[in-house]
Amino acid sequence: MGNTFGQLFRATTFGESHGGGVGVVIDGCPPNIELSEREIQGELDRRRPGQSKVTTQRKEQDQCEILSGVFEGKTLGTPIAILVRNKDARPEDYLEIAGKFRPSHADFTYEAKYGIRNWQGGGRASARETIGRVAAGAVAKKILSVLYKKFEMVAYVTQIRDVVAKINRSSVKAEHAEKNIVRCPDGAAAKKMVSLIEEVRGFGDSVGGVIECVIRGIPPGLGEPVFDKLEADLAKAMLSIPATKGFEIGSGFAATRMPGSQHNDPFEMRGGRIRAATNNSGGVQGGISNGEEIYFRVAFKPTATIGREQKTVTSSRQQTRLAARGRHDPCVLPRAVPIVEAMTALVLCDHALRQRAITADRGSRIGE
Amino acid sequence: MGNTFGQLFRATTFGESHGGGVGVVIDGCPPNIELSEREIQGELDRRRPGQSKVTTQRKEQDQCEILSGVFEGKTLGTPIAILVRNKDARPEDYLEIAGKFRPSHADFTYEAKYGIRNWQGGGRASARETIGRVAAGAVAKKILSVLYKKFEMVAYVTQIRDVVAKINRSSVKAEHAEKNIVRCPDGAAAKKMVSLIEEVRGFGDSVGGVIECVIRGIPPGLGEPVFDKLEADLAKAMLSIPATKGFEIGSGFAATRMPGSQHNDPFEMRGGRIRAATNNSGGVQGGISNGEEIYFRVAFKPTATIGREQKTVTSSRQQTRLAARGRHDPCVLPRAVPIVEAMTALVLCDHALRQRAITADRGSRIGE
Amino acid sequence: MGNTFGQLFRATTFGESHGGGVGVVIDGCPPNIELSEREIQGELDRRRPGQSKVTTQRKEQDQCEILSGVFEGKTLGTPIAILVRNKDARPEDYLEIAGKFRPSHADFTYEAKYGIRNWQGGGRASARETIGRVAAGAVAKKILSVLYKKFEMVAYVTQIRDVVAKINRSSVKAEHAEKNIVRCPDGAAAKKMVSLIEEVRGFGDSVGGVIECVIRGIPPGLGEPVFDKLEADLAKAMLSIPATKGFEIGSGFAATRMPGSQHNDPFEMRGGRIRAATNNSGGVQGGISNGEEIYFRVAFKPTATIGREQKTVTSSRQQTRLAARGRHDPCVLPRAVPIVEAMTALVLCDHALRQRAITADRGSRIGE
Amino acid sequence: MGNTFGQLFRATTFGESHGGGVGVVIDGCPPNIELSEREIQGELDRRRPGQSKVTTQRKEQDQCEILSGVFEGKTLGTPIAILVRNKDARPEDYLEIAGKFRPSHADFTYEAKYGIRNWQGGGRASARETIGRVAAGAVAKKILSVLYKKFEMVAYVTQIRDVVAKINRSSVKAEHAEKNIVRCPDGAAAKKMVSLIEEVRGFGDSVGGVIECVIRGIPPGLGEPVFDKLEADLAKAMLSIPATKGFEIGSGFAATRMPGSQHNDPFEMRGGRIRAATNNSGGVQGGISNGEEIYFRVAFKPTATIGREQKTVTSSRQQTRLAARGRHDPCVLPRAVPIVEAMTALVLCDHALRQRAITADRGSRIGE
Repeated sequence: MGNTFGQLFRATTFGESHGGGVGVVIDGCPPNIELSEREIQGELDRRRPGQSKVTTQRKEQDQCEILSGVFEGKTLGTPIAILVRNKDARPEDYLEIAGKFRPSHADFTYEAKYGIRNWQGGGRASARETIGRVAAGAVAKKILSVLYKKFEMVAYVTQIRDVVAKINRSSVKAEHAEKNIVRCPDGAAAKKMVSLIEEVRGFGDSVGGVIECVIRGIPPGLGEPVFDKLEADLAKAMLSIPATKGFEIGSGFAATRMPGSQHNDPFEMRGGRIRAATNNSGGVQGGISNGEEIYFRVAFKPTATIGREQKTVTSSRQQTRLAARGRHDPCVLPRAVPIVEAMTALVLCDHALRQRAITADRGSRIGE
Repeated sequence: MGNTFGQLFRATTFGESHGGGVGVVIDGCPPNIELSEREIQGELDRRRPGQSKVTTQRKEQDQCEILSGVFEGKTLGTPIAILVRNKDARPEDYLEIAGKFRPSHADFTYEAKYGIRNWQGGGRASARETIGRVAAGAVAKKILSVLYKKFEMVAYVTQIRDVVAKINRSSVKAEHAEKNIVRCPDGAAAKKMVSLIEEVRGFGDSVGGVIECVIRGIPPGLGEPVFDKLEADLAKAMLSIPATKGFEIGSGFAATRMPGSQHNDPFEMRGGRIRAATNNSGGVQGGISNGEEIYFRVAFKPTATIGREQKTVTSSRQQTRLAARGRHDPCVLPRAVPIVEAMTALVLCDHALRQRAITADRGSRIGE
Repeated sequence: MGNTFGQLFRATTFGESHGGGVGVVIDGCPPNIELSEREIQGELDRRRPGQSKVTTQRKEQDQCEILSGVFEGKTLGTPIAILVRNKDARPEDYLEIAGKFRPSHADFTYEAKYGIRNWQGGGRASARETIGRVAAGAVAKKILSVLYKKFEMVAYVTQIRDVVAKINRSSVKAEHAEKNIVRCPDGAAAKKMVSLIEEVRGFGDSVGGVIECVIRGIPPGLGEPVFDKLEADLAKAMLSIPATKGFEIGSGFAATRMPGSQHNDPFEMRGGRIRAATNNSGGVQGGISNGEEIYFRVAFKPTATIGREQKTVTSSRQQTRLAARGRHDPCVLPRAVPIVEAMTALVLCDHALRQRAITADRGSRIGE
Repeated sequence: MGNTFGQLFRATTFGESHGGGVGVVIDGCPPNIELSEREIQGELDRRRPGQSKVTTQRKEQDQCEILSGVFEGKTLGTPIAILVRNKDARPEDYLEIAGKFRPSHADFTYEAKYGIRNWQGGGRASARETIGRVAAGAVAKKILSVLYKKFEMVAYVTQIRDVVAKINRSSVKAEHAEKNIVRCPDGAAAKKMVSLIEEVRGFGDSVGGVIECVIRGIPPGLGEPVFDKLEADLAKAMLSIPATKGFEIGSGFAATRMPGSQHNDPFEMRGGRIRAATNNSGGVQGGISNGEEIYFRVAFKPTATIGREQKTVTSSRQQTRLAARGRHDPCVLPRAVPIVEAMTALVLCDHALRQRAITADRGSRIGE
């Protein structure tokens, strides 16, 4: 259970890091959307291992195959199954952890939950599982750009350990984030981040940081009170990404130190539309988008897999020590950027379809 | 849509702040659990308005009635419907906002989404909706205490604006939080918090803060990879509570500044069980509970309703000004404590039942 | 579990026959639909006990109260909770069955499933539970009539035991079914049916029969391949009604004896539209409505509660005998007609909203 | 939407008849169940085209590959993805129907719903989609046999057009059905059925019939009131199979002609257990299994694809004529037998897991 995300636009991922492959089945994709493997591959390439010197050197091309749901370049409205084969699997790299629980990994908890686990490369708990998410996210992004002409989404690294970038959130574009290997639009900070990552890798250690995501062009009205608030579904989406520890939308934790008179976003007329003069709300009020920029931040912990030796126990409950030998990322954030975007797209696309169900033709509402 | 929470233990809430009443239907409650209105009322009384000088003075006894699902003091396994009538409704207090959008409230977004809203007291967006959650949470807590003999849950206020409490997370008990009106176990900080709240109320302003929640006695194995990770469902649960802006579990945002070698929780044998030596994970690894204390923090913004005059627009798109006249809380945190607990209980109870479905008699797993 | 029906238009019913009351929470109702208690009451009155000499004499007015989701006569888009109090409960009538399992009732299976049951009047298994369905169905009918200008639905009794009515399916109207107390549009057959029911009641026995339902004005395109085919959801809806034993759509079981060349419905142009020349399909092809009349039949068994003495066992596993003393219907079909309609409306309304989610403004499809 | 079946044991199928392949992702499979491709292949071979002279001659080996969820021969508790490639696709056979709507097929309704369709071999509406169901059903059967030691399921053809078999339902075994190519345990009737099928094939026509399914060894307690009654979910499962027109459980439509005194199943003590003396209920009472044999019948229409020329229209709305040229089955029933079993297994397995969630260790109930 728990491998499906969404109510109307539903992504079901499958696959372990070592096994036949990983992928996704998307149910609920509207028909007649132009879609190609190339578009999906573009997003997968941003997530792919081995893409730069700061990522793991596992060699995977992550070539996707659309198995169903697309005909003559257009979606059919039927399930879109996408498969990526595992190629550069090296189970022998993981023999040691077959019997040892890696600290702060899911080895112990999978064993406790299921009484069995695929110990090769982390199995289902491997970040490789996110391939299915990114593939589904690519489809969701496509739909959003068809639905909303001004739709834009950009995620970027804003902090690695103590290196904090300076970014103008309201003007940042996707190309700014993509221009360096850490995906940080602040070039100066990006350089420091790369140095820091290489330094900690040298020590056999790892670092974490913060990713921010900004979405523009979403009209007012998306999000469902009371449990499926837009920020609630975004929070779930983000905390379902491996290695995340926190989520904040708009003013976030900083809101706790502000008086209401300063935090509230006054309404005003601007450009003929009702607009919020400030945006501490982060584009969502009462769980529903208000037409402003939606933005939030996600905290990532330092990678759990480290080269330095650590204390742990074996599955037969003996004290032991362990130092990682498998290929891994000293910092997951650069590759997590497209994953954050993918999960965001899944949430927004789902809510866009849900909102369509209760609104009438010509943009007006049923009954009007 | 969006008014049901949970997969196996499902709470569907209903009701506006002004109307016949508010309540919940719980589906999936196991049979043969002893349950009384008194137990539910106990939790509702902690959430009730007018309970102290720092809360709103709306006079509601919030008396609950169990309409179904309980017979001779025990649950039947059938839906438990719980109703609380609205009594002290004063729609006339809200006449002004019938045509004005309150800043940082849901007035505008409900109008944008539905083309109609019950403007009396915020309608469905009122915090009054959380009565159904608290009632359902009381049932969930009861089930958890039947399932897990050592189950304990305590939430408390740890920060109001810049007043930060000192609390020993691992020894704090429910009675410590309940001993003062702000529900902060640090008595000295609590006094300052009360003063601060009264002070800002005097200014017609409001404050926010942070609530922390600790859960003990949950065995390893709860939580479903990959989307329904325990922390993902907790994050969604928390961000679905009105006025929340952020969520962090375990080390949270602080994790972003720690090296992996320090952040990882080494495993060790302790008391005959596999235990984590530290708990930066917050009791969850790979989305699954590891048997350690589960803890997280939730950021609440300052109350949007304030007495000070603010800029806004009317529904006919005219610039105007507005000062709140309705009864309201200058700080929602004291009353939000039982809501945080309720939502936490809903998440844990749901995952407890989900885990039962795949584990066999005698605690062993199917197929063993 | 199992008390919610629908994906986008969701009805969650609650309540036992003896207890606080029965009702429903509807989630997913579009906003701005005019709705009154009077409309719902009209359908409940058709289902009400004591409405004629052929039904049970339990005295229940079944007055409904809308608790939420409607404001100034229009739906808000928020959950609509509807409550009907139990009034004429006589638990003492059921004392005998507290310890005896009534043959072909749910007493034994509830006990086996839950280890507890509300034995008063059948508890949750009582047909009284269908009040919530009929109330939700009234709302669904309203939405369907707003969405589809030519929408018509009529259900009627077509057979009681061996009395088979002659009915022109394509011209029958709701008023024809309502003109007599058995709800059979064939007046001559209706008379025989009434006599038959009174006769078997005199013997302390009961009878079953068949209800047919016809729906007109549904456009092509409703229904979701592959599992949520329109006929599949209708079949589930019908078999979820107490006392049903079978379902057939279009040609039904008779199709099994026809050659394909005769059974197939040729397409032709008629009135400028693509039409099926015959309608053995029953208005559904490949799980999707084709714009023709949708029709199906439902088999109801004879009422399980009978006055004649029967063999059974006690909950302490002793052989015993039992003769019903509670008030009951010798034939459920007349009162089941509005229940069949209600469940049909729930299915169609849900699929109507699901189809809206993937179709674009102006009736065209997304991407066109 | 609509491509997922089940609540806890969830099968999501994907694939068109012409395209990359067809398959299924199973979520919610308990861990530690022994499972091999060979077991799944065994069921697929029973469904495979070209298996006998009465089936279509399309040459597909339908070799399955387990892509995930199984490790060292055991289920992991993670999603099991199963893929079957399409091999003998001949899109050129279908060129004619690219622009013509086949009578009583889904061509027109898919076009109406989606505005696009994969016309090659019926696309998603092809019976080829049921491969995913049969694969998932094989897994469900395996789980059921692990859970219930006396579990047995057998489906068989009981009628082809007017040839009705004589079968002792309570003693029939799987091997009796498998001993001939029409899967009818009555050898004499089977011979007539084979002749009949060959005869109608000669005419370019087709036939339908009835499949019965019997399940033994299911304990009392499976099924969820009120909407997810066991018979309701079985009815939905059956009517979701292509070409089905009706469903009846236990006495079925025959119940409509019986008096209650004859129809009711008296309880008695037998073998130390509470048993029903007769079984008109079909093993389900109040939507919950009562421990008796569960049995039901499904009506299949004659195959819509026939060689004889028929009237129809083109997608550009011109009257035309059409005679099928693709390879097809003159009678779907022999190959539908494993599909009926698969869908039955999905329903029962799902309800078995749902019941586990509310029952306690040692078979007793929570709270006892």
